[in-house]
Amino acid sequence: MDAVEWIAVDWGTSHLRAWAMAGRAVLAEAGSAKGMGSLEPDGFEPALLELIGPWLETARVPVLACGMVGARQGWVEASYRAVPCAPVEAGQTCKVSARDQRVRVEIVPGLSQADPADVMRGEETQIAGFLAAEPAFEGAAILPGTHSKWVHLAGGQVQGFHTAMTGELFSLLATQSVLRHSVATDGFDAAAFDAGVQAGLAGAALAELFAIRASGLLAGTRPEASRARLSGLLIGAEIAAFGAGVSEAVVIGGAGLSAHYLRALAVAGCKARALDGADLVREGLWSLYEGATHD
Amino acid sequence: MDAVEWIAVDWGTSHLRAWAMAGRAVLAEAGSAKGMGSLEPDGFEPALLELIGPWLETARVPVLACGMVGARQGWVEASYRAVPCAPVEAGQTCKVSARDQRVRVEIVPGLSQADPADVMRGEETQIAGFLAAEPAFEGAAILPGTHSKWVHLAGGQVQGFHTAMTGELFSLLATQSVLRHSVATDGFDAAAFDAGVQAGLAGAALAELFAIRASGLLAGTRPEASRARLSGLLIGAEIAAFGAGVSEAVVIGGAGLSAHYLRALAVAGCKARALDGADLVREGLWSLYEGATHD
Repeated sequence: MDAVEWIAVDWGTSHLRAWAMAGRAVLAEAGSAKGMGSLEPDGFEPALLELIGPWLETARVPVLACGMVGARQGWVEASYRAVPCAPVEAGQTCKVSARDQRVRVEIVPGLSQADPADVMRGEETQIAGFLAAEPAFEGAAILPGTHSKWVHLAGGQVQGFHTAMTGELFSLLATQSVLRHSVATDGFDAAAFDAGVQAGLAGAALAELFAIRASGLLAGTRPEASRARLSGLLIGAEIAAFGAGVSEAVVIGGAGLSAHYLRALAVAGCKARALDGADLVREGLWSLYEGATHD
Repeated sequence: MDAVEWIAVDWGTSHLRAWAMAGRAVLAEAGSAKGMGSLEPDGFEPALLELIGPWLETARVPVLACGMVGARQGWVEASYRAVPCAPVEAGQTCKVSARDQRVRVEIVPGLSQADPADVMRGEETQIAGFLAAEPAFEGAAILPGTHSKWVHLAGGQVQGFHTAMTGELFSLLATQSVLRHSVATDGFDAAAFDAGVQAGLAGAALAELFAIRASGLLAGTRPEASRARLSGLLIGAEIAAFGAGVSEAVVIGGAGLSAHYLRALAVAGCKARALDGADLVREGLWSLYEGATHD
């Protein structure tokens, strides 16, 4: 393997991913389930070294990390930067005092918005990766997930953003509420999804939740259709809440979920395209690393 | 104790309550946590006898039970009666073959509605108790709880009804979602509740959920205020969904939750009064028992 120049790290609540980098090129990658949610403050450095140790020799290597690792319950709290601002900025990282002299760790701060109150950690780095490729983009970046983000971009900056708890609500309702008796653990039904999106767009998501259970009991609605309807209701509600005035949108995330969002956005009459989120984290960290080394 | 003429039973998912009755008079009462949710089919009769055994002598006593005991996962499935119809009707109960010859158990069926699909079990008996006292009532009976019911009454019949998953959603969000870090386990804040109700009425409940977490992080919003805001958002959304066109309403339930609903309904400009739910179950079972013995 070529000499490792720097290391990119995406450290969320439930995952840890790292890439050994030479400039913009990936030399190696590794991942573990040691997310921020499962670690005490003194567990972060060992979890990181366990993953990247094989890439380290004697020289000190810069490590750039983003995500929930910088939360109050994380390794070191990286204070939020207030929008409007560029998604990431060289010199605005939070330095970590690592015990191991082979690493120089810096954490990328998240973004905050005062009114309506909102925060993000990690998505700002994906946005930076996207803007590095398309600096003139104006419109909304949608990052679906446990907590979906709708990020308004213009002039190379994050102008404002909103969070929907869509993924977390879906998971709680599908697996822990009374709807679990009627909702399959996987499968999809396009017609049921589209009808759910329409109802969600019309503001009826909360009003129609229990009907998923009742139609399972009374009409024998298939569990896969019920799952798709629940998903459609919640994604439709998310688009109704945050999609007003969005003329151009990019959906940044994993392929499966992004496909559902593209479908729902089409039902809503909103033009959108999808980009892979994993690549963009690394691109965002690269833009930050490159900016810092050129200062 | 006077001779027990009949026994009234309210058997929900998480509770079992029984009253020893002489006509309309309560001779004794008892309760346990052996709700339908914790019992296998052959566990129902023992759970009942454990509670009412002390009231039984040699004569066979009629036992009238309502609630989830009649669900598919209950003791014996009591098929739903389709609305519009009277909330309960003599001769429409489901007979249970109990092994113990001292009881003759009948289960009150729940109600169903085809479109929009909806079901209830237990609330129909409270409604019957209410209509026994106010047979000419026209308007909405609101039964707040895990699954709140909005029941439209006219001509002594249930014309239609809707279920909101408000209580279950509140519990999941307050204790299992990311909001648990910002939401107190008890306490109330009237101003935060009212503001939440207003936002919920305006259709913004789902859009504003995550702001509860963010304002805890950024502005140090007190956990009691966050709890009240979450409650207000969801109750406001429920009223927005089902309160249109409601000119007169009664809220049937426990004192604490009913007070919150009355407050939220006042914010929405809807006149309402509260009635105690526990008494009404017994009154509803009495009206059914009385009707059957007079046939």
